[in-house]
Amino acid sequence: MSSSSTPQVITCKAAVAWGAGEPLVMEEVEVSPPHHSEIRIQVVSTSLCRSDLVAWESQTIFPRVFGHEASGIVESVGEGVTEFKEGDHVLAVFIGECMTCRLCKSGKTNICQALGLERKGVMHSDQKTRFSIKGKPVYHYCAVSSFSEYTVVHSGCAVKVSPNAPLERICLLSCGVAAGLGAAWNVADVSEGSTVVIFGLGTVGLSVAQGAKVRGASRIIGVDSNPQKCEKAKAFGITEVVNPNSCEEPIAQVIKRITDGGADFSFECIGDTDMITTALQSCCDGWGLTVTLGVPKVKPEMSAHYGLLLMGRTLKGSLYGGWKPKSDLPSLVEKYVNKEIKIDDYVTHDLPFDDINKAFNLMREGKCLRCVIHMPR
Amino acid sequence: MSSSSTPQVITCKAAVAWGAGEPLVMEEVEVSPPHHSEIRIQVVSTSLCRSDLVAWESQTIFPRVFGHEASGIVESVGEGVTEFKEGDHVLAVFIGECMTCRLCKSGKTNICQALGLERKGVMHSDQKTRFSIKGKPVYHYCAVSSFSEYTVVHSGCAVKVSPNAPLERICLLSCGVAAGLGAAWNVADVSEGSTVVIFGLGTVGLSVAQGAKVRGASRIIGVDSNPQKCEKAKAFGITEVVNPNSCEEPIAQVIKRITDGGADFSFECIGDTDMITTALQSCCDGWGLTVTLGVPKVKPEMSAHYGLLLMGRTLKGSLYGGWKPKSDLPSLVEKYVNKEIKIDDYVTHDLPFDDINKAFNLMREGKCLRCVIHMPR
Repeated sequence: MSSSSTPQVITCKAAVAWGAGEPLVMEEVEVSPPHHSEIRIQVVSTSLCRSDLVAWESQTIFPRVFGHEASGIVESVGEGVTEFKEGDHVLAVFIGECMTCRLCKSGKTNICQALGLERKGVMHSDQKTRFSIKGKPVYHYCAVSSFSEYTVVHSGCAVKVSPNAPLERICLLSCGVAAGLGAAWNVADVSEGSTVVIFGLGTVGLSVAQGAKVRGASRIIGVDSNPQKCEKAKAFGITEVVNPNSCEEPIAQVIKRITDGGADFSFECIGDTDMITTALQSCCDGWGLTVTLGVPKVKPEMSAHYGLLLMGRTLKGSLYGGWKPKSDLPSLVEKYVNKEIKIDDYVTHDLPFDDINKAFNLMREGKCLRCVIHMPR
Repeated sequence: MSSSSTPQVITCKAAVAWGAGEPLVMEEVEVSPPHHSEIRIQVVSTSLCRSDLVAWESQTIFPRVFGHEASGIVESVGEGVTEFKEGDHVLAVFIGECMTCRLCKSGKTNICQALGLERKGVMHSDQKTRFSIKGKPVYHYCAVSSFSEYTVVHSGCAVKVSPNAPLERICLLSCGVAAGLGAAWNVADVSEGSTVVIFGLGTVGLSVAQGAKVRGASRIIGVDSNPQKCEKAKAFGITEVVNPNSCEEPIAQVIKRITDGGADFSFECIGDTDMITTALQSCCDGWGLTVTLGVPKVKPEMSAHYGLLLMGRTLKGSLYGGWKPKSDLPSLVEKYVNKEIKIDDYVTHDLPFDDINKAFNLMREGKCLRCVIHMPR
C-alpha cells in the first residue's frame, strides 16, 4: 500500500469466481499498478447488482472478479492522470465518460464511444487484465471489478465525489439507484399526473418508482411475482401492486383494464425480453412510452407487433438512466446528501466482505434489495 | 344525384374487388344516404396507395371498395352534421378526428379513440356498410372507399379544404405524402445537419426525404432494390442511394460504415418488419431514432436485439405522420398552394377511373409513384 510516486503491485484479497454459478472463493490476487489513464482504487463498499448475478450464472469468462457498484478511495494514479490524486473519494462506474469522443461531446447521450460497455473482462486500453493469481490473468467485470480490496479502473470510469458523502451508501449510485432515477427523469421524462407501470420491483424498479414519485406521477403501478417485493414497494412510491400469479388475464390486459387503455409510461426492470413486449402492450395508444432497462439473461431478441408502434407507442432503451457519469453523478450525490433522494432504504443487508456469497444467495432467492458489502478497513 | 334535403340512394359506378388479387370489376353499386354524423362525397380524384394493394392482395373481406387517398365534393350530409354542406371541397382521411375523445383532446397524438383505424370494412357507427349491390353489402376500406364515384364517410374522417386547391393533386395528402412529411417533421423531428436513412423509396419514403430536406438534413440516404426508384429519388432530396442487391455486406453494416457509426434517423417505409430491425441497426448509438411507417404484408411481429435499445436507440411508430386531420391538414394544403411543399412530382400517372386496374398493375410492378385516378365529371 505504497504511496511512493511509482506504484507497485499490491497483493490483496479478492472474491474470485472460478466458474458459472460456483461460489466465489477468497483468493490472494496481485493487482498491478494503474497504467496510463488508469487509477487504482481501494474499494470501501460495493453492492451486489443483479447484472453481477446474471453474468456469474450465465457467462463464460473465468476466473473473474465481479462487482460494479462501488465506492472507494484513490490509492494511486497512472501516467497522464491529472483529475485524481491519492485519497480522493470516488465512485467507479461501468460506463465511462471520456469527454472527448463524438458522443460525449454531443451532449445528447451518455454512451461513450471510447469507454462504452466493456464485455470481455479486460481493460479498455490494452485488452489485458490488471488482476492475476500467480501471474495468471483474472478477468475484470464491467470495467469495475469491485469484489476485491483493490481494483484498477480507467480514469474515465471513475467519478470524484464529495468526501462528505458516506461511501458506505453512495455506492448504490454506481448503478441500480441511479439507473432507475435516470430512466424516469432523463430517458422517459415522466410527467406530473401521469400513470406509470413498472415491471420488476427490485432496486432498479423501485428507483424508477422513486423518480416517478418525485415527478408527481399520480399512479405508479408495480408488477412483480414476488410477494415480499410487493410489500416493500409502497415505501418507494408504488401506489398499487399487481402480482401476475394472482391474475387470470394476461398482465398487459390487466394493466390496460385498470388504467382505462394503458399507462402513459412503462418500464421493464426485470431483464426479460418477453416482458418488454408486455410493457409495450401495457402502455397506451397515442403517446405510450416503454423504457427498457433490464439486461436479459436468456433470449436477447425482443419482439413486438408492428401495430403497437403504429398506434403511437415508443420503445426506448436506458443505459445507466442516461446519466453521464462525470457530468451528472456529483450532483446526484449532492441530492442524496441534501436528502432530496433516498438511497438508504434500498439497503436490506450490510455484510462483511467475507460473507459475499451470502449476498449472491440472498439475491438469487429474491430476499434482498441491495446487499452492501463492506471491505475490511 | 339529388340535392333535396332528404338524400336518396345513389346508384353509381364503383370498382369492386371480389377476391384477393382479382382484378377490380366496374359495377353499379347503391350508395346509401349518409347516416347521422356522416357525409356523402362525390369523389373527384383518388390515388392508389400501397396499403390498398397490400389489403387487396392479402385480406379476406370481399366484395370491397378500396381507395383511401381521395378528394371530392360533399354531395349531402347526414343528421347532426353542421361542419359540412353540399359543395364543400374535402379530403377523406383513413383516420378520423372526433375532437372530443380523451386522445383527441390531449393534444399529444393524432390517434382518435372513436375514429381510429377501421379494419373490418364497415362504418364506425353501426358496423354496417353504405355500399350494396342489389341489396347485398359491399365492404368499405379504411373508412374511405374512394374507388367509387360516390362514397359515404364519417364526418370525422373528412376535412374541408380551400376550394382554390386542385382536388386532382391534393388527394395525395390524404395519406402517402402527408404520412412521409409528418414522419420527418412531427414524429422524428429531423434536425438540421443530421444524417437520415430511408428504407423504401416509394411515395412515402420520398416524402420523408422531402421533409428531411426541408429541415436541412445534410445526408439523406435512400435504400431501395428497385433501380428505377433510385433514379427518381434525387429530385426529392435523396443525396445518395444504396441498392441492397449491389451490396456484399448486410445493409445495416453498409449504412453504419458510410455514416461512421450509423444514421441519426432511420425510417422504415416498406412495410417489412425485418426491415424495421435493419433500420434500428442502421442508426447510431446514443440517440439513433427509428421511425416505422410501413404496414407489413406478412409477419406482423418485428424483433430486435435488446442491446440496440440499451445503447440509446429509440423505436417509434408513425401513423399518418402524426397529423391530426382536421387540425393540421388545411395548413398542409396551404403549404402546397404556396409552393412550400411538392406534391405534383409524385404523380407519375393520371388515369381515368376505367383504367384503375392499370394503376394496380403499375404499383405491383414498382413502375409508378402515385397513379391518380380521375372520376368522370
